[in-house]
Amino acid sequence: MAKYKCGRQSFRFENPPAITTWASIAGKKESEGPLASYFDNTETDSYFGEKTWEQAEKRMQQLALKTLAAKANMQETDFDLVCSGDLLNQCIGSSFSLRNMGLPHLGLYGACSTMAESLLISSLAVGGGFFENAVAMTSSHFASSERQYRFPLGYGGQRTPTAQWTVTGAGAALVRPKGNGPKITACTVGAVTDLGITDANNMGAAMAPAALATIKAHFTDLNKKPDDFDLIVTGDLGQLGKDILLTVGQREGIQLGGKLADCGTLIFDLLKQDVHCGGSGCGCSAVTLCGYLLDKLNKGKLNRILFCGTGALLSPTSTQQGLPISGVCHAVSIERS
Amino acid sequence: MAKYKCGRQSFRFENPPAITTWASIAGKKESEGPLASYFDNTETDSYFGEKTWEQAEKRMQQLALKTLAAKANMQETDFDLVCSGDLLNQCIGSSFSLRNMGLPHLGLYGACSTMAESLLISSLAVGGGFFENAVAMTSSHFASSERQYRFPLGYGGQRTPTAQWTVTGAGAALVRPKGNGPKITACTVGAVTDLGITDANNMGAAMAPAALATIKAHFTDLNKKPDDFDLIVTGDLGQLGKDILLTVGQREGIQLGGKLADCGTLIFDLLKQDVHCGGSGCGCSAVTLCGYLLDKLNKGKLNRILFCGTGALLSPTSTQQGLPISGVCHAVSIERS
Repeated sequence: MAKYKCGRQSFRFENPPAITTWASIAGKKESEGPLASYFDNTETDSYFGEKTWEQAEKRMQQLALKTLAAKANMQETDFDLVCSGDLLNQCIGSSFSLRNMGLPHLGLYGACSTMAESLLISSLAVGGGFFENAVAMTSSHFASSERQYRFPLGYGGQRTPTAQWTVTGAGAALVRPKGNGPKITACTVGAVTDLGITDANNMGAAMAPAALATIKAHFTDLNKKPDDFDLIVTGDLGQLGKDILLTVGQREGIQLGGKLADCGTLIFDLLKQDVHCGGSGCGCSAVTLCGYLLDKLNKGKLNRILFCGTGALLSPTSTQQGLPISGVCHAVSIERS
Repeated sequence: MAKYKCGRQSFRFENPPAITTWASIAGKKESEGPLASYFDNTETDSYFGEKTWEQAEKRMQQLALKTLAAKANMQETDFDLVCSGDLLNQCIGSSFSLRNMGLPHLGLYGACSTMAESLLISSLAVGGGFFENAVAMTSSHFASSERQYRFPLGYGGQRTPTAQWTVTGAGAALVRPKGNGPKITACTVGAVTDLGITDANNMGAAMAPAALATIKAHFTDLNKKPDDFDLIVTGDLGQLGKDILLTVGQREGIQLGGKLADCGTLIFDLLKQDVHCGGSGCGCSAVTLCGYLLDKLNKGKLNRILFCGTGALLSPTSTQQGLPISGVCHAVSIERS
């Protein structure tokens, strides 16, 4: 058995890497929501000064990286690895943001699970002794996502009740071998899980089975239970997906009630902000983690969380071809240092 | 300094992981080329028995994984990590191939550098003691790529002289902590490099600067020179990109002549197969590595290669918006055991 492997899908660190610094950039709607005060920067211009929404996403990642460096009292060139990805076709938000910066880059695609996936891979790279200053980063943008996955905004399509609102935002976290800040103690890599949901406007239902599978795997592999955590935070299941996870979990003997929170329901006021089932997109769990959650852990308001990034694995092509939507969920156990 | 880190972008293993098994699946045109005898399976039906080319790509990855398991005398469920990605929007070739298999999956996007990127991340996961049986896998398909990036085939668009031919194929490699087979001794993570090429039909020129930057970084970080390798193999620069790399390398004092090979020129007969500048696509370097190169290393015909996966980071959206094409290149040093 590999030294740090636990069970089927998980590993645990002997010397847990630290998340020493984090940064979050958010858009206008997010700046009007309940987590507004936790973001480092908010911007009312949906273009972030660029000509296209895709370039706005690039700009958000650049701002997140710059802010991260400033908060860490480092130069951006001090980072020695950037693990990042986004929702845009061929992940151009991430690649364009790092253009000619000389930063070693591992490109990822995990849909909305990317914040957890990038943290997980950063922790492998740092915890294994291969890199020193690894950045986990991702972004999403409401307008670029809507036109890529559903309809261009100008079309004025009506949103269904199960729809979620893609968060405009970018988050970045610096992972180092040691230092002050919350520690990554263990991770579970998710498997592609699919119960046959085909409605591209109901991502929560598509992702909930993957979330449950990964949470169960984490508990089994590492001998944990819900009470070992202050909070089990899913990426962006939204209200419906969260309800499904609670119900199906209960049926399988996993009582998440009282412990479960979801970034998609934390980031917006669901009653006042007209976002239907809540937030979604890579940026949703990214800014909730790199704003709100890490801050709470750092200040001792939370001691231990299981951060479960959830992603819906579909493309407009697969949806048009009538294929179902798979989900994936990666879990990262983060503890107050 | 992290224990295994070398220089700015590289790391070296104290106990190099082994590539114990590899498998390759290729399409019709590839089965008519010079490497035909090295592939495990070839198929003349471009749909691989599926209804769409996107699903054909899924099927190819499934076949590669199944073949890998059979060659390793293992069950597919014995694999404990699959690092994979592809060129399709939202990497649906990879995610659909792993649907409901229960295999822990890290999704990657590195364009045509994915075989190198997935090997590199697998080696981190295994070399760091986190996983035991990691699979690095990728695929591409001529028809799904043409219609996504350029024109649907039925349109009959004329190919420019600098164009390359996307390889239809999938490759998979099993990385284990030890065992018989070529060893991964060191890796260099590439940075996003962009000299301003905007012609989406000239990927070789877009990727050559990234290849040179990564090869230089590998030499500097690990104190190596071209003569330390039997072969320096770039992913899929094609004939033009390879010529550019040789010329620009020479200008910068790096003499690659006599050592440089390119998967894009190895896989097809450029004079007879009407592929213009050669092969491309994630599958190009994947089947060349998981067919030809690892076989040569295993039989002692090669002792040490630097496998340099090259990727062009663009999307149809970025091209339509007039943006340049960045390149990235990851290098994996592989030695005969």
